Amino acid sequence: MNNEIHEECGVFGVYAAAEREVAGIVYTGLYALQHRGQESCGIAVGCNGRITLRKDLGLVGDVFTPKVMKTLGEGRMAVGHVRYGTTGGNDRDNAQPILTKHPACTMAVVHNGNLVNAYALRRELENNSAIFHTTSDTEMISYIITTRCISDGSPEEAVLNAMDILDGAYSLILMFGDRLIAARDKHGFRPLCYGKTPAGDYIIASESCALDAVNAYFIRDIKPGEVVVFDETGVKSLTAHCGKVTPSPCIFEYIYFARPDSVIDGHAVHQARINAGRFLAIEHPADADVVIGVPDSGIDAAIGYSAQSGIPYGIGFIKNKYIGRTFIAPLQSSREQMVKIKLNPITETVRGKRVVMIDDSIVRGTTSARIVGLLRDAGATEIHVRITAPPFLHPCYYGTDIDSAGKLIANNHSVEEIRGIIEADSLGYLNTDYLPLLISGDVNFPICRACFDGRYPTQVPGGEGKEKFEC
Amino acid sequence: MNNEIHEECGVFGVYAAAEREVAGIVYTGLYALQHRGQESCGIAVGCNGRITLRKDLGLVGDVFTPKVMKTLGEGRMAVGHVRYGTTGGNDRDNAQPILTKHPACTMAVVHNGNLVNAYALRRELENNSAIFHTTSDTEMISYIITTRCISDGSPEEAVLNAMDILDGAYSLILMFGDRLIAARDKHGFRPLCYGKTPAGDYIIASESCALDAVNAYFIRDIKPGEVVVFDETGVKSLTAHCGKVTPSPCIFEYIYFARPDSVIDGHAVHQARINAGRFLAIEHPADADVVIGVPDSGIDAAIGYSAQSGIPYGIGFIKNKYIGRTFIAPLQSSREQMVKIKLNPITETVRGKRVVMIDDSIVRGTTSARIVGLLRDAGATEIHVRITAPPFLHPCYYGTDIDSAGKLIANNHSVEEIRGIIEADSLGYLNTDYLPLLISGDVNFPICRACFDGRYPTQVPGGEGKEKFEC
Amino acid sequence: MNNEIHEECGVFGVYAAAEREVAGIVYTGLYALQHRGQESCGIAVGCNGRITLRKDLGLVGDVFTPKVMKTLGEGRMAVGHVRYGTTGGNDRDNAQPILTKHPACTMAVVHNGNLVNAYALRRELENNSAIFHTTSDTEMISYIITTRCISDGSPEEAVLNAMDILDGAYSLILMFGDRLIAARDKHGFRPLCYGKTPAGDYIIASESCALDAVNAYFIRDIKPGEVVVFDETGVKSLTAHCGKVTPSPCIFEYIYFARPDSVIDGHAVHQARINAGRFLAIEHPADADVVIGVPDSGIDAAIGYSAQSGIPYGIGFIKNKYIGRTFIAPLQSSREQMVKIKLNPITETVRGKRVVMIDDSIVRGTTSARIVGLLRDAGATEIHVRITAPPFLHPCYYGTDIDSAGKLIANNHSVEEIRGIIEADSLGYLNTDYLPLLISGDVNFPICRACFDGRYPTQVPGGEGKEKFEC
Amino acid sequence: MNNEIHEECGVFGVYAAAEREVAGIVYTGLYALQHRGQESCGIAVGCNGRITLRKDLGLVGDVFTPKVMKTLGEGRMAVGHVRYGTTGGNDRDNAQPILTKHPACTMAVVHNGNLVNAYALRRELENNSAIFHTTSDTEMISYIITTRCISDGSPEEAVLNAMDILDGAYSLILMFGDRLIAARDKHGFRPLCYGKTPAGDYIIASESCALDAVNAYFIRDIKPGEVVVFDETGVKSLTAHCGKVTPSPCIFEYIYFARPDSVIDGHAVHQARINAGRFLAIEHPADADVVIGVPDSGIDAAIGYSAQSGIPYGIGFIKNKYIGRTFIAPLQSSREQMVKIKLNPITETVRGKRVVMIDDSIVRGTTSARIVGLLRDAGATEIHVRITAPPFLHPCYYGTDIDSAGKLIANNHSVEEIRGIIEADSLGYLNTDYLPLLISGDVNFPICRACFDGRYPTQVPGGEGKEKFEC
Repeated sequence: MNNEIHEECGVFGVYAAAEREVAGIVYTGLYALQHRGQESCGIAVGCNGRITLRKDLGLVGDVFTPKVMKTLGEGRMAVGHVRYGTTGGNDRDNAQPILTKHPACTMAVVHNGNLVNAYALRRELENNSAIFHTTSDTEMISYIITTRCISDGSPEEAVLNAMDILDGAYSLILMFGDRLIAARDKHGFRPLCYGKTPAGDYIIASESCALDAVNAYFIRDIKPGEVVVFDETGVKSLTAHCGKVTPSPCIFEYIYFARPDSVIDGHAVHQARINAGRFLAIEHPADADVVIGVPDSGIDAAIGYSAQSGIPYGIGFIKNKYIGRTFIAPLQSSREQMVKIKLNPITETVRGKRVVMIDDSIVRGTTSARIVGLLRDAGATEIHVRITAPPFLHPCYYGTDIDSAGKLIANNHSVEEIRGIIEADSLGYLNTDYLPLLISGDVNFPICRACFDGRYPTQVPGGEGKEKFEC
Repeated sequence: MNNEIHEECGVFGVYAAAEREVAGIVYTGLYALQHRGQESCGIAVGCNGRITLRKDLGLVGDVFTPKVMKTLGEGRMAVGHVRYGTTGGNDRDNAQPILTKHPACTMAVVHNGNLVNAYALRRELENNSAIFHTTSDTEMISYIITTRCISDGSPEEAVLNAMDILDGAYSLILMFGDRLIAARDKHGFRPLCYGKTPAGDYIIASESCALDAVNAYFIRDIKPGEVVVFDETGVKSLTAHCGKVTPSPCIFEYIYFARPDSVIDGHAVHQARINAGRFLAIEHPADADVVIGVPDSGIDAAIGYSAQSGIPYGIGFIKNKYIGRTFIAPLQSSREQMVKIKLNPITETVRGKRVVMIDDSIVRGTTSARIVGLLRDAGATEIHVRITAPPFLHPCYYGTDIDSAGKLIANNHSVEEIRGIIEADSLGYLNTDYLPLLISGDVNFPICRACFDGRYPTQVPGGEGKEKFEC
Repeated sequence: MNNEIHEECGVFGVYAAAEREVAGIVYTGLYALQHRGQESCGIAVGCNGRITLRKDLGLVGDVFTPKVMKTLGEGRMAVGHVRYGTTGGNDRDNAQPILTKHPACTMAVVHNGNLVNAYALRRELENNSAIFHTTSDTEMISYIITTRCISDGSPEEAVLNAMDILDGAYSLILMFGDRLIAARDKHGFRPLCYGKTPAGDYIIASESCALDAVNAYFIRDIKPGEVVVFDETGVKSLTAHCGKVTPSPCIFEYIYFARPDSVIDGHAVHQARINAGRFLAIEHPADADVVIGVPDSGIDAAIGYSAQSGIPYGIGFIKNKYIGRTFIAPLQSSREQMVKIKLNPITETVRGKRVVMIDDSIVRGTTSARIVGLLRDAGATEIHVRITAPPFLHPCYYGTDIDSAGKLIANNHSVEEIRGIIEADSLGYLNTDYLPLLISGDVNFPICRACFDGRYPTQVPGGEGKEKFEC
Repeated sequence: MNNEIHEECGVFGVYAAAEREVAGIVYTGLYALQHRGQESCGIAVGCNGRITLRKDLGLVGDVFTPKVMKTLGEGRMAVGHVRYGTTGGNDRDNAQPILTKHPACTMAVVHNGNLVNAYALRRELENNSAIFHTTSDTEMISYIITTRCISDGSPEEAVLNAMDILDGAYSLILMFGDRLIAARDKHGFRPLCYGKTPAGDYIIASESCALDAVNAYFIRDIKPGEVVVFDETGVKSLTAHCGKVTPSPCIFEYIYFARPDSVIDGHAVHQARINAGRFLAIEHPADADVVIGVPDSGIDAAIGYSAQSGIPYGIGFIKNKYIGRTFIAPLQSSREQMVKIKLNPITETVRGKRVVMIDDSIVRGTTSARIVGLLRDAGATEIHVRITAPPFLHPCYYGTDIDSAGKLIANNHSVEEIRGIIEADSLGYLNTDYLPLLISGDVNFPICRACFDGRYPTQVPGGEGKEKFEC
């Protein structure tokens, strides 16, 4: 299962109406965002200008034991982060929040996204004596904001000025001594929204499902290019780049990354996936007996395909919910068997039937081939694979790990060849033209779909492939 | 979420065609049975008459790290166990397998079930100088078999003789120096089946889904009152109690405990749940817009209800898959909020709709009330709750933790009162008479449904409530 | 440093005047007895008939964290144990106290010593259906006392009767529901004494240094063959074997095992070692410039040798106090270097001098040779080795790990040959005849010196070498 | 025992003749230097320009498990550090080596000492946009050297230039991509020496005992104001400050901090302590029966006092060698008892005797009073306390934690008053004038004794007490 695509961060913040156990609120919020990053996590609590930080490799429930939670104490504000990153022990240093202690600026920053000009910025700063301790572009963002704090005065001025030189994807929450600032890049690549609890605490989160988890009601999304300041006086909205913004939110948040119970920029993720299933049923119909979805993200689309086509929906697989990072593949097991340990088909559903199987993507083809094989072994007579996205053709530079072009199966094979590789009876991808319609009635609705069509909304790093400084 | 009902064990064994890393096979099998017990787990490997045992509190993936797996080495046979039990540190002692080292009998035993004459047996044995180290009835079973080994000779004779004095529910796998013996009580309360891998290894498991996980094909269920011996000479079936058996398998395995991809005694669990949904649609129809299931076990039945009633099926909830044992409820959170952190409704599915919500049981009513509340908050206009089982009225003495009568809501309240307590618009339970029909065409098919109708297939412990010695 | 000789247990008990944190008292006492066993440790607290037990592999300070201490709670009584044993993971099972839960007898037992008839007793008990969970003879002692409790009634009767069939070395503390019983075998091989704190708590311990540590004043040693009962009514002394006792305390406790600040059976350990040095100076004088001791046990004797001979005493070595179990020998280091990491000579003391070096034993000769080499490298011109004991010629069956005869250097080599092997200029052992004089004016004072002269005070296990069931 | 004085670091480095397991050499060296810091430790290995670093809170043996050692791999160079610091979880960040990754300078630094101009330097650097991640002055040293590397080119130039603005105590080892540089401040406050192993590896260490541990022979001390470069071409000595140096090594290294088997700047520590005892015997004679030393550092001086006075030397105390960081003081124990758990008097040595007790310092008086009390309880008739140093009157700014003036007993009490407080029969301190004579025949030999006489060899931080940035 190494072929999965990973989102690379979730951010969460709270500015409370009074001093309280804000760490517990962040903890709950991070549980709701855990799907956005399982590599490391962290929480920073601000109390009277002092910041207490705990972060480590591992899931929220493993890192934040009762003992660790106790050390975080009470506070007026807090920020938290979950992260997916490249594997390796050094990753601990790249865990967030990133804490900066400087006479002009004590600050904890959490970031979801990826700068496209990180490499050039870093070299320039280092030539001016900056020393970085991590390979994370979040540390660079912190450094730039700190230098602006020395020269420009107020934290919000520093953030607005810094945004002029940061290029790429960033949904940020910055905790200063006496205020919390949320900022979203002018393209709005990654989601960011805020709400309020009955107790009057403001909550900022990557996805609305995290507001639900802490019992906050949704107020609104942070707009592309917007800076929102939460402090003693209330909530204040500022506009970066003199308001010159060009929104292009990532469509793959709807197709794969986000939780189906989230609503992003006004559009329900669950509905977008049902729509994907409906469009697939229209463009790639199949003569079949049952529609099944590959858990988790194929399930919603399968219901859409079933509703549109009239073919009954069935439960095709049981996913073993205990298999996580800790599962050790037994020596004697083939990779085929590994898929089976994770996903077991329900024979009753597919035996002797023609099956439509909905999945969200085909990255290299091997996993899809194994899943098709499982269904065949369970007695399915035909298997019609439908993918809720177009083929991946281009790398993503905005905070996901969609790989460089050469490794993507669709760059080297036609759809018919891929069908043959995965041994399906038919294969249909979602048409790129339908993508805006998943979330809007307007076929020209601006979204980022660069991984499918290569039209990047920003300059992208040249030459040597993917930019190194992630998340 | 303390109101859940827990199955109290899963067993797994392997008798390999040659010496190999049998521990890895058990490891994978226990992952597939993890839903049957999350409190503790253990693996014992037999190699040339020596037994190596590792067991501890925790999930399989937490206890069996690569380092621990390495200590288990290779072998010809192995047994494993997952357990749910009462909480508390001492539970480590009650973890299984139970190892016995005695000149007449070196043996590792795993057990799913509960003896009903444990208390009387223990007192009798203790008066004869037996000293027990745990409160588990499995140790008693081991003791009795050991004494029979001293007097009776062969392990299979010892097992058959011991079965004459063990009363209650037991699906056992016993690993001796040179053979593996599987035994199922004469009522067949708990499931037990076996299969074979392409490499020729025999696999015994509580559920067939564990055979799938290790790539074994299913051979057959072990019959009530049957003893099956796996050794160098092959497989041998013996009959206990001179063949006087009275099968009464637990129907709640189908409704709740087992995995939907398992097939028990020839009947598919997934199909039994779909049937439950269909029967509910017939007996308790509803005028509604969508049918949803409470994850996980309500999902299958919701599809059955939808198919029978014609009301569309929808995804009602997203279950947070990261919330396990480690989640610490934040201080300020109410129990209502806790339910919401675990289960978040999908507003798109239920807003403005009349909803049929399928669940598997109502134990005390509080959790159900909270879930109904979540739907109401998400905008459902009517909520019709349908339960895939009859009301619990009696405690279970056969290896589940269905509580003593006084604490069960249905003993103190009418269905209409319960409807009021959970604030549903209507409430319907499955009729007890339909229970045999979930798995058979014969309305008189013998099953144990004592928790619903109080007709216990055995003597049960008197007076002081539930027997203490579990699993 | 594998050539060291290990004592194999320390026991400690408290019977408090009132319910209090008795675990803390045991904890402190075990710290003072840690030198008697570093492999595993345990504490059992008795409170109103219930016993709470915690034990594990490791040093007292590692096993008994504040968190673990808290789980032990308060109580009226407690017993504790430190153990040295054969290495290996399974050793956890052999850790003490051994807890027995039986309707006739709930009891925690700690034991220092070794039965010589353990093998025969175990086979007999197993034939009568006893199942043992450990390889420790302490479990057998517990089993026998439990069976006596069923038949004989009072715990003290049970203990006295059991002592008639237990042969060998045992200093026991047994905690029952309402009393603490201390028992010492009729030979008094291992020490055992008791005292009382200002708060009125009775303390029983292997060595008087542990009384000091908990601020108790010494009352007296428990006599060979004596049973002392501590309960609500006070202290009661009973006599086993109708008073037929034959004391033969282990002389090596004085020479090596015990702490120099302890007083055993009325004789100060420190003084015994000084005496050993004096006798060595008389029998093996040397023409030298400085006397040094090998830490720790050679130091006291060096002062005695210096006082008797008039040769100045000097500090010869610095022992690295941080090197314990955790030190990993670097790949490139020779065993010579390992000795140097642990013991570094002080050049100032020995350079250009003729040195008398006092040590407590030569087991295989290799360590002694390396230490002599260090002195030579540091510039000593002559090295005269003096050993505070006679040569080891026979294995010990009474609770130490003095090895079987074949592996002891003195069985295969003359003193002159050993001198050559360790490359000393001269070598002198203490004369066996002087041994009683270390602690008494009477040259016929009865002691066990079987490891030197082979005259065992009991039957010893035949044939196959050392008895398996230790401590 | 909070009254102890702590040295605040030990440094160790190796430049090997070929690529090998240099981490193992550092590991062994740090074991030998563990007495200089028990709070945290770290090792950095340099291999082909890449640096691998592991550091954590804890003792060397706890932090550097075999698993951690394996991650360090092989290399040509390595540096290591042990640290004592203020307590608290955040201290992990202050652990050393400090690693700097910058295009102009990849470097790992270890430091023993304390800058006296740290506060002013830090503020100045921060105003120029420097962001520091720790409160350690070592990070400032790293920062300054990095900026010099950008502007000045070669690492040795950078180090020499940096030394011009660093004021205070520093013995540094700096590991660059292809060379190791050792530097000692112009006062030579802290020791630093180097040697060579038979395999040709150069070893740099705080004390010569660490050379012994890795089997290196001593070459020479690094001189005050000297910079020594170890690289492919061999060893090169450079002179900072144009050779204007004013040596004033810390005399308390000899009296207390260093190991007695070390030789510093040509003077043996053991001999210096014996000399201290001799001078005490001359200036503060006593009419007594035995001389004892308080372990560990009082032992050597007691031998000197005995030799000079003719009063026999005795072993007065047994120190419990297992009591380290992990010991939890039992609730009911008084601080008096705590001293006794750690140090138990040997009654035989002192009962009925007039005792001279040698210790190295009296910080607040409470610990000394308790030790005197122990001797009195053990039967000493008179106790004459002799201290191997003059009274502390002034704080130390050069890397030890000798406290601010107000808390030192000698600032508020006369010697006679202190004698009364500790309830000794007489009390004698070493005369300040004798201090140079401990290590030299020249009474004007330059040493730093500012903690005794307040004459600081450098500017010291003003006003607000002790400088914050330590080690």
